[in-house]
Amino acid sequence: MFKGKTKSQTARVEGNHKMKIILGPSSTELAEKIADLTGFEKVSVASRVFPDGESYVRLENSVMDEHVAIVNTTSKPQDSNLMQLGFLANAAKRNGAKKVTAIVPYLAYARQDRIFLEGENVSIETVAAMLKAAGIDQLVTANIHAETALDKFPFPAKTLTAIPLLAEYFLKKGFTKAFALAPDKGAMYIAQQAQQILGGEAENLEKQRDRHTGQTTQTGVHLKVKGKTVIIFDDIISTGGTIVGAAKILREQGAARIYTACVHGLLVGDAEKRILDAGVEEIVATDSVPSKNSKVTLAPLLSEALKAL
Amino acid sequence: MFKGKTKSQTARVEGNHKMKIILGPSSTELAEKIADLTGFEKVSVASRVFPDGESYVRLENSVMDEHVAIVNTTSKPQDSNLMQLGFLANAAKRNGAKKVTAIVPYLAYARQDRIFLEGENVSIETVAAMLKAAGIDQLVTANIHAETALDKFPFPAKTLTAIPLLAEYFLKKGFTKAFALAPDKGAMYIAQQAQQILGGEAENLEKQRDRHTGQTTQTGVHLKVKGKTVIIFDDIISTGGTIVGAAKILREQGAARIYTACVHGLLVGDAEKRILDAGVEEIVATDSVPSKNSKVTLAPLLSEALKAL
Repeated sequence: MFKGKTKSQTARVEGNHKMKIILGPSSTELAEKIADLTGFEKVSVASRVFPDGESYVRLENSVMDEHVAIVNTTSKPQDSNLMQLGFLANAAKRNGAKKVTAIVPYLAYARQDRIFLEGENVSIETVAAMLKAAGIDQLVTANIHAETALDKFPFPAKTLTAIPLLAEYFLKKGFTKAFALAPDKGAMYIAQQAQQILGGEAENLEKQRDRHTGQTTQTGVHLKVKGKTVIIFDDIISTGGTIVGAAKILREQGAARIYTACVHGLLVGDAEKRILDAGVEEIVATDSVPSKNSKVTLAPLLSEALKAL
Repeated sequence: MFKGKTKSQTARVEGNHKMKIILGPSSTELAEKIADLTGFEKVSVASRVFPDGESYVRLENSVMDEHVAIVNTTSKPQDSNLMQLGFLANAAKRNGAKKVTAIVPYLAYARQDRIFLEGENVSIETVAAMLKAAGIDQLVTANIHAETALDKFPFPAKTLTAIPLLAEYFLKKGFTKAFALAPDKGAMYIAQQAQQILGGEAENLEKQRDRHTGQTTQTGVHLKVKGKTVIIFDDIISTGGTIVGAAKILREQGAARIYTACVHGLLVGDAEKRILDAGVEEIVATDSVPSKNSKVTLAPLLSEALKAL
């Protein structure tokens, strides 16, 4: 929830006048869906990259005296998407917008949310300060890796969970009572959120890090997965190593079918192939990172949040 | 010059204690040279790009209670170099630096320094605001495209001219009294700066823009270049079209030898080949954009500026 915000506000009947949705170049499709669901007016963006590599954005509709919501994810290329988000915020303010809310489905740099070694910066804090300077007044994201990262923001910032939407995707496929597995203890709350929708069991693996090589391995307690359909839930799938390791354990313990679902399918390099080769039948992700794995849209979740602002 | 700064300050004899030079990943070589010339201590940077594309930086030496100068150009990839500059500034401040000066030899987005169409942002203003938020207190760059862009900075910012260094490069080759040509009227001040070193003539072409196609063509007044060595001077060479056009006119008017020099050799795509194919014998640029054309280093210019801060 927004820090310091206590008043609950419901969408007005004439809610389509409440704000305008800026269709950010990195999330155009999702932004269109949000505009359709909320009934809020759209603001188109003309965008291009100059031959030298610089980005250009221009708002094609008026934002004068409006509260605008810029929908622009910051998946790869993270830095260019962040700069474009900043440029859009500045364009909105400069063209008369009275309030700028950033809807950033995937928020880059959220994992560098503390100092691990002397001499580092807290990247998410730097990003947040830069976005504020660009003109952003508040931010909504989905499944930030650690909610404590939101404490680094100099303006109200909230995270929503898309796990129920992912679980519902499987429910619609008829996977009632599927086994929800978290690949490590830190993701157990995610498996539990899925369990509430699926109505089956939830369990987590343990991840161990070799002190010398830095390699991580997972160890299963004995899981009661024999003959069952198991869905591995996580917030982010990056290189896919964690999912591949979990799938191996599931196969060894006799799971009948293995699926995986995540909010943010970064799927770096050959991650997708490696996961499928490990016996996972399907990778399901949201449109926070647009790809062919974006089988679940965040539009209903983000629309409700916008209407409640 | 720095806005509002009037006091002239000379380097102290114990000048090597005055500040530390942070070796930014995009300008490591130049930063090393500046450290050598000034005698200021170096701060090494550990940097890497994670598999997902996010940048990581860490200062490897203490900056506690120091005035630090981060040397980090923002040529391609502009957005990542800008974010890394911000991360380094935040790292410096967080690790105790009392003042952060950014030395940005090539400053990205300086050409979007005003509104050309409704709905735009002023990119350089957004960039400046973001850099301030990240922790930068003042900035030094070289040959910003328009000095008025510096008015958009919320902190002291100055630009230096590297044209004399470029002219001296040709003087050392024995090109006394070479003809300095500006490819358009806007660059005439550059040709004149070169002329002061070379001691020859200076002249500019006129650029005309077709109102329908947007294509630009150059027209020469009759230039007295027959049999002469001509150097085309500009601040930035991007796609190279302007230089190719100027070289064509010079050949038509009988120039004996044609060279080109610029501060910022962006040289997008096949720009270099096109310029050489147009009859230009050599392209000379500075290390503001590191490449094999960086035949002139900005180190002496930036070192003097740092010592005088």
